[in-house]
Amino acid sequence: VNLFWAIERMLRCAAQAASEQLSLQQLAALVRDEALKIAAEDRAACLNMGTLGASLIQDGDVLLTHCNAGALATAGWGTALAPIYVAHNEGKQIHVFVDETRPILQGARLTAWELQQENIPLTLITDNMAGHFMRWGGIKAVFVGADRIAANGDVANKIGTYSVAVLAHVHHIPFYVVAPCSTIDLKLSCGDQIPIEQRHPDEVAAVRGMKIAPVGIQVANPAFDVTPHQYVTAIVTDKGIAQPPYDASLSQICSQSGS
Amino acid sequence: VNLFWAIERMLRCAAQAASEQLSLQQLAALVRDEALKIAAEDRAACLNMGTLGASLIQDGDVLLTHCNAGALATAGWGTALAPIYVAHNEGKQIHVFVDETRPILQGARLTAWELQQENIPLTLITDNMAGHFMRWGGIKAVFVGADRIAANGDVANKIGTYSVAVLAHVHHIPFYVVAPCSTIDLKLSCGDQIPIEQRHPDEVAAVRGMKIAPVGIQVANPAFDVTPHQYVTAIVTDKGIAQPPYDASLSQICSQSGS
Repeated sequence: VNLFWAIERMLRCAAQAASEQLSLQQLAALVRDEALKIAAEDRAACLNMGTLGASLIQDGDVLLTHCNAGALATAGWGTALAPIYVAHNEGKQIHVFVDETRPILQGARLTAWELQQENIPLTLITDNMAGHFMRWGGIKAVFVGADRIAANGDVANKIGTYSVAVLAHVHHIPFYVVAPCSTIDLKLSCGDQIPIEQRHPDEVAAVRGMKIAPVGIQVANPAFDVTPHQYVTAIVTDKGIAQPPYDASLSQICSQSGS
Repeated sequence: VNLFWAIERMLRCAAQAASEQLSLQQLAALVRDEALKIAAEDRAACLNMGTLGASLIQDGDVLLTHCNAGALATAGWGTALAPIYVAHNEGKQIHVFVDETRPILQGARLTAWELQQENIPLTLITDNMAGHFMRWGGIKAVFVGADRIAANGDVANKIGTYSVAVLAHVHHIPFYVVAPCSTIDLKLSCGDQIPIEQRHPDEVAAVRGMKIAPVGIQVANPAFDVTPHQYVTAIVTDKGIAQPPYDASLSQICSQSGS
């Protein structure tokens, strides 16, 4: 939802410029300035989320993340990974279990690479190992990003997030969602109203182009799932940490000025 | 554990033959007969598990299975898949969600192929979709096999089985383990005593030889996990269906003669 938020903001900027009868050059400069402003705000938002989220991480913690919500996905340090980067920079010893995140493998390809670049200790696992390592691996918290968050705190995020949230709940492990206020859609009362994009079956039936399943079978490939707010311990935004009940906390935090 | 059970039985057969001063040809014939007898017994055991397990499947049911425990893994119709085959042959309309089962993809490569051969409707999913489809896909029961079952009903099986069991529990979906009595190790009091084989990291860092993760990162690759008996609704053996408490039911069922 924050992609559309940014597009709307750019269109508003362009519409206002158009009404002022500017030259094409002036219009281009204005639109570019707005885009750079959004990028700068995104960097600042990432830093805020990182600083707020790092307060939830203790020295020595083992963490788990799913998909990629880091520097490769934002203009700054990311969302879910920002608290991890900040905690690491604060000198906290942490270790991150990284779900590979089938079918597109954002965890194996992107998150593992990012953490490796920053010398943050990590262990790559297949998605189906999450429960086993929650039971035996000493995982103290889960950090994930979000594609869209409803007013009640329901979270749409990469497929597999819901399974991780349920497993964390059963193992009494805090499940933190990290996302800027631009991802929170206060007009959406709950997550079950979100239509789920169905992606191409070959993303599942093949891995990066190599067929791994028989030809002609039925395949499901929902791009994301919805995690009900009951499984979300807290939502770390750029303007503060929202606690349940989210109906109250999200609107209070995200309606603050200064965005 | 049933591989070692079969090896021990073959060694006992050979030792007995050796004590009887038979010729090499006579010894070979005796050992071959014993092997064929085990295969015939395995076929019969699969049929028994299938018939017993099919009683747990209703017409119209949507099921989920993990890994491959079918005709490709046994001398007969398999363990977890046997009830599915029998239910299908009884004319019940069923649909099976098949976990792809990373890292080795036994679900995508083997189970999907087996079910396709038998014209049983299936949907292949990535492992991390199991929770989502338990919530939305109408899944009525989970069937899995087992590598080893302890006397208290704890089940060692392919990595990811524990996550599926926890998810099934939270969604109030029965979780059935199907295995012959030769898989049940009554000398093992509980599953947490089972050492877990750690396999080569490249099985996770690559998919069938194609690298999917950065070089030099740490990878975990436990071959299986242990599902505590609390998550197991019933254990379908070749000699009967064991219900909790398993300490009593497993020893009672598996000590019956006629194996």
